[in-house]
Amino acid sequence: MQNPVTVEVTRGNLVESRHRGLGAVVDGDGKVLFSFGEAEAHVFPRSASKAMQALPLIESGAADAYGFGNKELAFACASHSGEDAHVAMAASMLGKAGRDDSALECGAHWSSEQAVLIHQARTIEAPTALHNNCSGKHSGFVCTCVHAGMDVKGYVDYDHPLQAEIRGTMETLTGAIIGHQNCGTDGCSIPTYAVPLKGLAHGFAKMATGNTLSAERAKASRRLMDACMAEPFYVAGTNRACTKLMEVAPGKIFAKTGAEGVFVAALPDQGIAMAVKCEDGTTRAAEAMIFALIARYFEKGGEVHTKLMAMANKPMKNWNGIHVGDVRVTDALFA
Amino acid sequence: MQNPVTVEVTRGNLVESRHRGLGAVVDGDGKVLFSFGEAEAHVFPRSASKAMQALPLIESGAADAYGFGNKELAFACASHSGEDAHVAMAASMLGKAGRDDSALECGAHWSSEQAVLIHQARTIEAPTALHNNCSGKHSGFVCTCVHAGMDVKGYVDYDHPLQAEIRGTMETLTGAIIGHQNCGTDGCSIPTYAVPLKGLAHGFAKMATGNTLSAERAKASRRLMDACMAEPFYVAGTNRACTKLMEVAPGKIFAKTGAEGVFVAALPDQGIAMAVKCEDGTTRAAEAMIFALIARYFEKGGEVHTKLMAMANKPMKNWNGIHVGDVRVTDALFA
Repeated sequence: MQNPVTVEVTRGNLVESRHRGLGAVVDGDGKVLFSFGEAEAHVFPRSASKAMQALPLIESGAADAYGFGNKELAFACASHSGEDAHVAMAASMLGKAGRDDSALECGAHWSSEQAVLIHQARTIEAPTALHNNCSGKHSGFVCTCVHAGMDVKGYVDYDHPLQAEIRGTMETLTGAIIGHQNCGTDGCSIPTYAVPLKGLAHGFAKMATGNTLSAERAKASRRLMDACMAEPFYVAGTNRACTKLMEVAPGKIFAKTGAEGVFVAALPDQGIAMAVKCEDGTTRAAEAMIFALIARYFEKGGEVHTKLMAMANKPMKNWNGIHVGDVRVTDALFA
Repeated sequence: MQNPVTVEVTRGNLVESRHRGLGAVVDGDGKVLFSFGEAEAHVFPRSASKAMQALPLIESGAADAYGFGNKELAFACASHSGEDAHVAMAASMLGKAGRDDSALECGAHWSSEQAVLIHQARTIEAPTALHNNCSGKHSGFVCTCVHAGMDVKGYVDYDHPLQAEIRGTMETLTGAIIGHQNCGTDGCSIPTYAVPLKGLAHGFAKMATGNTLSAERAKASRRLMDACMAEPFYVAGTNRACTKLMEVAPGKIFAKTGAEGVFVAALPDQGIAMAVKCEDGTTRAAEAMIFALIARYFEKGGEVHTKLMAMANKPMKNWNGIHVGDVRVTDALFA
């Protein structure tokens, strides 16, 4: 089996580039409702798994001890753009645990969003770890460690108890065996584990439905998803796909992107979740796929469906604003 | 036939993403020395064709009339990063023809290179058309029009005599029929024409060897290629692939990238040229492919071959400088 072309990029009347992809839509029982491509293939979820990685923040009692509300919880699941409000939120969360940015082990980088980078260049000398797109997740890690009495130093290491706990959580959710054999290092230095794409989708369906989870984990899962849906700016930022997607139908869509063309989403009211991966790792294709895949589960012709399909099939304009082509999804997503 | 996986991106011990590609190496007679994938497929050359598009600048006599040397000619073939020296060069070329940036019809955009963008954000309010990565080509167009007595206004339009001349030039070089049926609009608003990838490579082989070209065109072609090889900074910029590639073996390698994963190169001493296209339009894969493809034609184990293969198989580091994976070329490029 091979991954079909799921997204085409046109120019004039011709197709200029093609993206292949795999995807799966799964319910809480693990039943595959729809799939395309090699949906059993192992995929690094990268940042798409952040809501799973944030479970210990709630389950340890840290989130309640530090009085974290929706903004903080959404931010703990974020790949943010490094906007001023994001940077302030990271500092605030760390402050609640009596720490500052020196505790963060994610590294520093400038924003990858052009408008934010221009603002940063004009207002700061250089970015700190607070500006790292993963600083929310890492601030959550630090808070969890401090509250749980774990050493903070080395919290990114495979053998640190927090990472061991996250491994166990991800095994329970995805049903995959996780260890050194499927471990890679993420951009922010924590371990990331390749799991079958269907298992990843099933994990989010479990989080959305609570199916097979302990009452405590089911509650923590919904609390994180609800926080993200309530505060989508803190999950990504201005004009970002995750934020726009969750704003299309407030409270109905949870969505999270990951590097190298991964995207996951859950529709809690419908008890389903889905995951896609662009074979070549390109974000524009992962976004188009998840937009169209979510649209399948909203009424055709309705407002949400129409908005999502307009995001999936997107005109491209050049520097003079001339329409030069389109990013468009193929029939592979509508079989 | 289908395009093979030519580039893999690894993380830990696993392949995280895969790129498919097509490519062809052709001599001046049009003989295909090596190819992979659907090498007859139509591909928009985008900016990879800039040296072809710059021929009228020399053939019209404009380059000599305005005293253009290697820097100006290289810049007329450039997709530059918008560094200060690039912006100054665009203004200087336009000034020779008594014009300024108001004549440019390419639109304005911030640099896509992070370090340059940070510098721009700190030194200018907003970019002008001089900062557009295509401002060198467009300045060359304006100079050609002024010298040849053509209207400057509308020089980007399909029906403008300069674009008609470029169409004829590209037909002669690539052997493809060019017209509305294979025309798209480029990022900088000029027409771009999809041609078979082998034809694109053959066109550059003709430019490198002079084969089948008039003496005048053969001379103009070599003059442009020699200028690019002599002044690679003006073809791209600091740390850019085209610049680094031409610096590996000064005078031996001409190379030019194009948007959506296109790259062309010519080895004038060897009388060959080549073109690659990444099916999904990704630059990292186009670069890896062209590096490895050029390396085939240098002595294995020699300095140039070693440097090129080190560029083709590149370690990826995360924000903390940890080696997390590699971009690497596959056997499809070594069949």
